Amino acid sequence: MSEKLILDGNVVANAVKEELKGRISALKEKGITPCLATILVGDDPSSATYVRMKGNACARLGIESRKIELDKETTTEELLATIDKLNKDKDVHGILLQHPVPSHIDERKAFETIDIEKDVDGVTSFGYGQTALGFGKYPSCTPAAIMKIIDHYEVEVSGKHAVVVGRSPILGKPVSALLLNQDATVTTCHSRTVNLEDHVRQADIVIAAVGRPNFIQGDWVKEGAVILDAGYNKGNIGDVDYEACLEKAAAITPVPGGVGPVTISMLLKHTVDSAESI
Amino acid sequence: MSEKLILDGNVVANAVKEELKGRISALKEKGITPCLATILVGDDPSSATYVRMKGNACARLGIESRKIELDKETTTEELLATIDKLNKDKDVHGILLQHPVPSHIDERKAFETIDIEKDVDGVTSFGYGQTALGFGKYPSCTPAAIMKIIDHYEVEVSGKHAVVVGRSPILGKPVSALLLNQDATVTTCHSRTVNLEDHVRQADIVIAAVGRPNFIQGDWVKEGAVILDAGYNKGNIGDVDYEACLEKAAAITPVPGGVGPVTISMLLKHTVDSAESI
Repeated sequence: MSEKLILDGNVVANAVKEELKGRISALKEKGITPCLATILVGDDPSSATYVRMKGNACARLGIESRKIELDKETTTEELLATIDKLNKDKDVHGILLQHPVPSHIDERKAFETIDIEKDVDGVTSFGYGQTALGFGKYPSCTPAAIMKIIDHYEVEVSGKHAVVVGRSPILGKPVSALLLNQDATVTTCHSRTVNLEDHVRQADIVIAAVGRPNFIQGDWVKEGAVILDAGYNKGNIGDVDYEACLEKAAAITPVPGGVGPVTISMLLKHTVDSAESI
Repeated sequence: MSEKLILDGNVVANAVKEELKGRISALKEKGITPCLATILVGDDPSSATYVRMKGNACARLGIESRKIELDKETTTEELLATIDKLNKDKDVHGILLQHPVPSHIDERKAFETIDIEKDVDGVTSFGYGQTALGFGKYPSCTPAAIMKIIDHYEVEVSGKHAVVVGRSPILGKPVSALLLNQDATVTTCHSRTVNLEDHVRQADIVIAAVGRPNFIQGDWVKEGAVILDAGYNKGNIGDVDYEACLEKAAAITPVPGGVGPVTISMLLKHTVDSAESI
């Protein structure tokens, strides 16, 4: 068995944050404090945890986070009005609407209301389109994190066959687009895919973005594949059966400590990018 | 050899146009004449031909076409101003900027200036993003045509493996997105794809969108595959080696008379859709 490369997300996230520190200082010298507004609707405990984690990450770097907490009875119109106010607020550089929102709210409409210049979480269709056509400023953070890890560890993408398992608007679709733009041949698989294993088995690069614990099996992956696990299921379990896939992979992200920490650092980076662009 | 199904684009285009006739009459009774503005910059003869063909197709159905012809020395700013004027013109329901424009013009910027509500040719990144996320009103016309043919001839898409050869912003990328949204497993290939034949050979559905005459070979395709040829090269030659692929295919579009005529009918349909939406 050849030596395995563990794609350590904490190393990548720390490198990103180190670089951001200098940029944030420079902004502050100009009197600008990067500011991320987070919107939490309702009282879902995991959503509250995610928002808190993001706020803490901001605080550690000196990025302001403005936490907006809305009652679970909030209407779509009220949420749109909140977003609109943040769109117009010159001190806010990024807007993150924590999802899922309560089911009576039109989440897509809310996402679409976020100004493209402040869509640091990459949720708008406009931002997605720009990303897919190759000139998006703020891709969704998890896809951006996957590409950052690939870049950091110099994983070859051009000409490789990438198989993405999952097709959500903030993960499977945009990561497929980003890999395609870096000249991978990309296959996007999903719940209706027939013979999923046969597709995964051909992949030079596997992206697990399906949201099912330990879903990708060791005997599904080709010897020498690079595996990036964007899954984050209850109990800190990824979408990939890590131990079994480690045997086969040339390189693999662990869970936790893989894609997750880089995702948050991408959110911070986009917020700083946005603050710099004003 | 089993019976081949020739996917006749003229049949599909005529069915679309028949349906449009009634809708156009209804609009006219309300005092609305659907109107497509076409912008031609410079004096490229094939571009002029395409614009004329589209104008004639409009005329035959009673759709007004407003032809704007700009000098080849036109600047980006002048073109943007022209588009902006059409965006604001309430009598114009669709805007088509014939591409390519002369190379000194920022074509992408020009496309992006077209109002999403009038982007009936599906060239904006915003429209692309909406299409890819599943709620676009006006996908690019060639991808829309391919899906229309698939729909007309009841080609099964869900769970099938579609291989798209080409990744242009108005063809390969959006048709990949549309097929994915109809539950195909989609592989997008391009000039950097390694072992292209091996990918094509696995396809249940092949989309040729590469712009190279007779590029897809008969021995690249699986017995029983459905082949849609969006290529339109000089001398009325498609991207698919038709005779050789016909042997293997369960169904195939000819060139000419395949995707081409349906593409124009999609442009007309989008223009009527837009006129109805005001």
